[in-house]
Amino acid sequence: MRVLILGGDGYLGWPTAMELAAAGHDVTVLDNYLRRNVAQETNSEALIASPNLVERARVFKEVAGPTIEVIIADCTHYQQMADAFVRCEPEAVVHYAEQPSGPYSMSSYRGAHLTLNNNLNATFNLIWAVLEHAPDCHIIKLGTMGEYGTPNIDIEEGWINIEHKGRSDRFLFPRQAGSLYHTTKIFDTDLLWFYVRTHGLRVTDLMQGPVYGLTTAESILDPRLAPNFHYDDIFGTVVNRFLVQAVAGMPLTVYGAGGQTRGYLNIKDTLQCVGLVLANPAARGELKILNQFTESLSVNEIAERVRRAGMELDLEVQIQALPNPRKELEEHYYNPTLSGLLDLGLKPHYMTNEVLGEMLEVVGAHRDQIRRDIVMPRVRWNTDG
Amino acid sequence: MRVLILGGDGYLGWPTAMELAAAGHDVTVLDNYLRRNVAQETNSEALIASPNLVERARVFKEVAGPTIEVIIADCTHYQQMADAFVRCEPEAVVHYAEQPSGPYSMSSYRGAHLTLNNNLNATFNLIWAVLEHAPDCHIIKLGTMGEYGTPNIDIEEGWINIEHKGRSDRFLFPRQAGSLYHTTKIFDTDLLWFYVRTHGLRVTDLMQGPVYGLTTAESILDPRLAPNFHYDDIFGTVVNRFLVQAVAGMPLTVYGAGGQTRGYLNIKDTLQCVGLVLANPAARGELKILNQFTESLSVNEIAERVRRAGMELDLEVQIQALPNPRKELEEHYYNPTLSGLLDLGLKPHYMTNEVLGEMLEVVGAHRDQIRRDIVMPRVRWNTDG
Repeated sequence: MRVLILGGDGYLGWPTAMELAAAGHDVTVLDNYLRRNVAQETNSEALIASPNLVERARVFKEVAGPTIEVIIADCTHYQQMADAFVRCEPEAVVHYAEQPSGPYSMSSYRGAHLTLNNNLNATFNLIWAVLEHAPDCHIIKLGTMGEYGTPNIDIEEGWINIEHKGRSDRFLFPRQAGSLYHTTKIFDTDLLWFYVRTHGLRVTDLMQGPVYGLTTAESILDPRLAPNFHYDDIFGTVVNRFLVQAVAGMPLTVYGAGGQTRGYLNIKDTLQCVGLVLANPAARGELKILNQFTESLSVNEIAERVRRAGMELDLEVQIQALPNPRKELEEHYYNPTLSGLLDLGLKPHYMTNEVLGEMLEVVGAHRDQIRRDIVMPRVRWNTDG
Repeated sequence: MRVLILGGDGYLGWPTAMELAAAGHDVTVLDNYLRRNVAQETNSEALIASPNLVERARVFKEVAGPTIEVIIADCTHYQQMADAFVRCEPEAVVHYAEQPSGPYSMSSYRGAHLTLNNNLNATFNLIWAVLEHAPDCHIIKLGTMGEYGTPNIDIEEGWINIEHKGRSDRFLFPRQAGSLYHTTKIFDTDLLWFYVRTHGLRVTDLMQGPVYGLTTAESILDPRLAPNFHYDDIFGTVVNRFLVQAVAGMPLTVYGAGGQTRGYLNIKDTLQCVGLVLANPAARGELKILNQFTESLSVNEIAERVRRAGMELDLEVQIQALPNPRKELEEHYYNPTLSGLLDLGLKPHYMTNEVLGEMLEVVGAHRDQIRRDIVMPRVRWNTDG
């Protein structure tokens, strides 16, 4: 199948490209290096430097065989998006092309404005490129479990039947996010759902939790093919931060009470899920929404797991509570449904001692590149006014 | 009170400015003439030409006394918005500065892109101008009843308690709009609600139905102060179209079955509502949502009322069904709540024979300027793909 991957330079974009190319698809990646540029701007570069996309595609072809086409272009410029569609003629598009950092979106007018405009216009231009050039194309859009926030009711997969005063109707599950970035993902879903209703697009929205993992079946073929690993407060997730802190002998910093619970998954499962959805497309006029995670964990549980995995490698790991820089519930109900992807055949990998131990060893090999000054929170949104 | 009115050149913006100035407030209007430019671009100019804002403010001062300050600026340019805040130091902002045409937002890439980016960035810049220059300022934002769509359950005022599997929580009422324009208004609400939660803004969101009416207490002082009256398929509402068709001897064109029901209100009631809300601001960290309409009417009912009012003026009025150019339910449940504004003291005007008769007479005085070719639908979004 001809597949276009928007945001193909990213933590998930590049591994997805390799996985789909290895599986025999004709893969084109498109990126404008926005994440690299924001990382540079915010002093948040990845732990392990990655070659650029053209170079990564060259290495991949050398060690694995398949060709991955590379287009350097900006999804917020419609003509550039349309040109990519004409060149690639995609049967499916995987849409990762978003500014993905919550803290960056809360850092300043600049960060907020860039996030809002980049993310909404990328999705908007994708919709129009499909309408004008590939109306039958299946859009696989990465949403986030963060769109749901932490409601006091069970989180269904995208939709909910509401009974109210003796009548009922079916609606998108109510969403309420914790950062502007996550709010733009709500807008993405609403925008796609609107054009699904009016113009019959076919869309799958994957509501994904935070992803961890440093290796995939293809990335291990050459160190230059590794996924990006960010551990700073802008792009690093809590798992990455804890791994780096454990290796660097810094205490694991838990924000607030540490009861913040989210659904996590291994990067290998992200690749599985995208593959399964590619093989099971949404129908014309259908918005299929699937929750994409494998286990719900609190920050305290993750800290404890990293501490235990560290002990087995003779790392002495402390855990330290920090005042929470974010505005979020620190203890809350959290019960998301996971069934659609399991029904399609997902075989989960879990955050075991062994998995964490392997990640600690990869991070340990780059211990000397760890910059301790970019780990602690630099962006706060816990104060009114 | 110092009040800044964004979109002060509009159908509602200018009458609001006059009403608040007459009531003793210090009023500044800001506009970039976007609606006039789009009207020109789409061959959709108003029936009665209006002087520009500076001239209207001059005439108003001459005939009524108070000064209305005029700023010509673009809300999507942050520095222009920030400059207006520094100059005006508003205690309240009334936000009408949006591209308001559903059909224009569905007409083309250009129309859709302009609507999405104008509306979202105007609201976004307003939020940041308040955060940076006037954190205590009360934002009165005009939403639309169209955000709710036509759900099969009663429409509450902004919020709903959802009971689900034995647990419950309170959410924004689910919204699902019928045009991209209306979808951008959903985004506005979500964006404001996000910054209310994180930064303690004070916001009132007025979910307003379609407004009709050609006169206000101030507009009658001089014909140059009249509200804009659009009757074309881009900016004209169904009421205006019917009035013009009745005067021009064209059949009233009902789209589809004509059971499409919405909550309507007289422009005099819009002014009342904004005045009431100005006097009863939201608290810090509060998003107050009020439904703003006075009576629910179907298209068929409006056609029948215009026909009856026309008969009293010896107009022979036919009613004709047209294939619906829009994607919408033509028969549906519709039961919106109206209580918040009544509790604040709203005294409704209704769409009576007398009110319609007065409007028919104003339109009749401009019979010779009616352009019959811009009344019929030029934009369609009823087809898939």
